[in-house]
Amino acid sequence: MTPERYRRICETLDRRQPDMTVIMDGVHKPHNIAAIVRTCDAVGILDVHAILPKNRARVAAGTAMGSQRWVKVHKHEDSTPVIRELQGQGVQVLAAHLSDTAIPYREVDYTKPTALLLGTEKFGVSDEAAAAVDQHVIIPMMGMVESFNVSVAAAIILAEACEQRRAKGFYDQPRIDPQRYHELLFRWGHE
Amino acid sequence: MTPERYRRICETLDRRQPDMTVIMDGVHKPHNIAAIVRTCDAVGILDVHAILPKNRARVAAGTAMGSQRWVKVHKHEDSTPVIRELQGQGVQVLAAHLSDTAIPYREVDYTKPTALLLGTEKFGVSDEAAAAVDQHVIIPMMGMVESFNVSVAAAIILAEACEQRRAKGFYDQPRIDPQRYHELLFRWGHE
Ligand SMILES: C[S@@+](CC[C@H](N)C(=O)[O-])C[C@H]1O[C@@H](n2cnc3c(N)ncnc32)[C@H](O)[C@@H]1O
Ligand SMILES: C[S@@+](CC[C@H](N)C(=O)[O-])C[C@H]1O[C@@H](n2cnc3c(N)ncnc32)[C@H](O)[C@@H]1O
Repeated sequence: MTPERYRRICETLDRRQPDMTVIMDGVHKPHNIAAIVRTCDAVGILDVHAILPKNRARVAAGTAMGSQRWVKVHKHEDSTPVIRELQGQGVQVLAAHLSDTAIPYREVDYTKPTALLLGTEKFGVSDEAAAAVDQHVIIPMMGMVESFNVSVAAAIILAEACEQRRAKGFYDQPRIDPQRYHELLFRWGHE
Repeated sequence: MTPERYRRICETLDRRQPDMTVIMDGVHKPHNIAAIVRTCDAVGILDVHAILPKNRARVAAGTAMGSQRWVKVHKHEDSTPVIRELQGQGVQVLAAHLSDTAIPYREVDYTKPTALLLGTEKFGVSDEAAAAVDQHVIIPMMGMVESFNVSVAAAIILAEACEQRRAKGFYDQPRIDPQRYHELLFRWGHE
């Protein structure tokens, strides 16, 4: 590993946000998964959860997921246990969801430990997940089409979260525990 | 046309922003073009410019572009004349471009007449376009990957533009001239 590479990896690890995550609840198009995971890397997310029925996981795990070396994608078959576990850890779980009770995405405090759940390309967030999360958030739409592409919606909300965390200095000093830091430093250094 | 449909079309036309546009300078993947045009609709953009070499235009004009009934996609073979014409009309042309002189995207005033130029998936913004535009803007990246997906980058910047315009009341009263309004009302009503 060159010194430049080592420095770049350390800088990235110094900015990782262990208390921010994304749950892709049935998102299945590889280009959407790839774009979401790439955006997660860019805002400092370490772990992403992908809920996929068994027969789909293999497809999505191909190029799209495999190419993402810097974000760990955890696969699950059902979202409710994931939501419950995060809530148990004190994480606010938000669903990007076009419901009547949704609040505008810029009104949320993303400096709290936060998970953002996204729905499927076709049917959106399931009733079950919508009921389990703590809050629905919406990006106001001014046009004829009723929703954004899912990777676009994820990016708009995560960019706001990133901005809020930047303003509060969350990227200015290491936030992950030393053990995970060194594990990742070792792994990334050998990719 | 049902009264609901009529009302929805009028509401959308009332929010259209004639002084905001996007230039896709060589973006060629259909799913990226589709996502960008869909985002444009959602923030109230009427016209988008697509620069595509002749042999590519046909492919991209297929599903991706055809499905976008609410945004007019103007095709061109070269970006410089488009940039020059917009500048001649008093529009600030911004390139989303990862250059040394780029300023953070949240520091820009998007309530001015604005065009946002995006580069190709692989090579980014051309030297020619980078030199012709008025300003480069960048979305800060905190991770290992060097850039966002192009439709994601477009969405992050356009969402900020939308927010600024919303705060200033730009979506609260009609902004397009009566002739175009009625043309579009007629056309959209018959789609
Ligand atoms: C293409 S949309 C799903 C559309 C689906 N027909 C529905 O009504 O929910 C896919 C996902 O993107 C996210 N999304 C899209 N537009 C959004 C918006 N304006 N606000 C919040 N989330 C949005 C949501 O997570 C949604 O489940
Ligand atoms: C995948 S990127 C191109 C990457 C290319 N290797 C480069 O260095 O420019 C495609 C386009 O998305 C936009 N883009 C991606 N990430 C961006 C960022 N962080 N800031 C501004 N624009 C970005 C730019 O318009 C860019 O030309």
